[in-house]
Amino acid sequence: MGRTLTYPKRSSNTVNRYKHRATYDLKAIHSIINSSQVLHVSFSPGPSDPFPTILPMIGQMGSFDYPSASIDEPLDCYLHGYVSSRIMNLARDCEGDGLPICIAASRVDGLILSLTPNSHSYNYRSAVLHGYAKLVNDEAEKLYAMKLITNSVLSDRWEHSRVPPDRAEMSSTVILKVKVVDGSGKIRDGGVSDEKKDTTNDEVTGRVWTGVVPVWETFGEPIPSPGNKVTEVPDHISRFVADKNDQNQRYAQEAVRITLPLEEQH
Amino acid sequence: MGRTLTYPKRSSNTVNRYKHRATYDLKAIHSIINSSQVLHVSFSPGPSDPFPTILPMIGQMGSFDYPSASIDEPLDCYLHGYVSSRIMNLARDCEGDGLPICIAASRVDGLILSLTPNSHSYNYRSAVLHGYAKLVNDEAEKLYAMKLITNSVLSDRWEHSRVPPDRAEMSSTVILKVKVVDGSGKIRDGGVSDEKKDTTNDEVTGRVWTGVVPVWETFGEPIPSPGNKVTEVPDHISRFVADKNDQNQRYAQEAVRITLPLEEQH
Repeated sequence: MGRTLTYPKRSSNTVNRYKHRATYDLKAIHSIINSSQVLHVSFSPGPSDPFPTILPMIGQMGSFDYPSASIDEPLDCYLHGYVSSRIMNLARDCEGDGLPICIAASRVDGLILSLTPNSHSYNYRSAVLHGYAKLVNDEAEKLYAMKLITNSVLSDRWEHSRVPPDRAEMSSTVILKVKVVDGSGKIRDGGVSDEKKDTTNDEVTGRVWTGVVPVWETFGEPIPSPGNKVTEVPDHISRFVADKNDQNQRYAQEAVRITLPLEEQH
Repeated sequence: MGRTLTYPKRSSNTVNRYKHRATYDLKAIHSIINSSQVLHVSFSPGPSDPFPTILPMIGQMGSFDYPSASIDEPLDCYLHGYVSSRIMNLARDCEGDGLPICIAASRVDGLILSLTPNSHSYNYRSAVLHGYAKLVNDEAEKLYAMKLITNSVLSDRWEHSRVPPDRAEMSSTVILKVKVVDGSGKIRDGGVSDEKKDTTNDEVTGRVWTGVVPVWETFGEPIPSPGNKVTEVPDHISRFVADKNDQNQRYAQEAVRITLPLEEQH
């Protein structure tokens, strides 16, 4: 039932290594982007500089035109930045489709400790998007994106802070909207996978411990600021901390238990 | 006493936003790179593709020529990859200095929950390097880098696994050596910083909780593989897990307590 939308395979986003781990599903890719606290955004500064550069940014997938669009539908990527930063200036001055950029998100879910260094790996989730970035000029769309991005840092935070932003705040914040042209994701889960030459070597298996160390991001006890006047930590914060810790730990531990296909290596 | 080496400031790596958080110190930048589980590496696929692309890779700073060089001295960045991957093919075919790439690492140490969305931020550490990547052809240097990178995933793991790699393993692994031309880092620590217009507004301070949620990476209990024959989790693993958890949590919590300079915003 239903359809699964996927990104087109182009030479720039087709995964050639460990193809069975690749995904082009909008849902999988958008979920990795949206659950990442930091996105790495790459652009070329211009013909005089040979190096592409990378900025860490905060961003989220969303649709201003269809706000009820779900995670598996076509979405734009909104990135948050400062008005005078280089990427914003480049995007502002860019004609045509916009500034060509690449957005990447990765997280490590476990250390795969195998018999040999070559079979060591991570359990991980990573996603890459390519697209054209343009500044958002429409006030309503900008506000939509600011709320979306704030609530990605901590659910419902927008509603529990001083909003709306005033004139100065609106003008110092710049939002980039990225029209995505392709994307891909890669997910590695499961356990250790060694080659037969090692698993049948008793000397090696007798001394090398193999297994997985799950890895996840922990959110600690909230620490009130010296100026804070609200005595209890509000529900939207304590709930977020508890939910995230539970989800993150569970994902990392359950990822280990997934059975690998026979052809799996590394 | 002694000197502090810094990367040259060029237009490509000079931080213009929140300059007081920027660092060009080799030690600070190399430490961020070396303590990151994943590096994001960007390169331009070529003239026919407008988009730069990003690969998540594993890497470490080191010096084959001066293996005893410390973290605050000039080092190369070694990146681990697969023989037929696109970045390796580009680096292999690249003439002259090598393939111009950008390497970035970022980690989040805390959520800064302020009175207004605009003053929200992260405590974080990020580093960016630009440099020229070439394939390592020398066998001894390749082995040096493979050991360096394996032990960055888990300390002393190389010595506790089946080494040295055999012929097939040596030839399927490709190591990129990046000659760094510039670098920069950015570190944000401390607590909440709001503007006077909000801190003096009793209606706002009376209802908005402000403070920091520390964030750190947790390593869980090691899970043995079905094929594992070593009954006890070895010391090098349990020590790594305990040390990392302690360090990571302590860093995130102590970062909150650092006093911000008066001019600090966001």
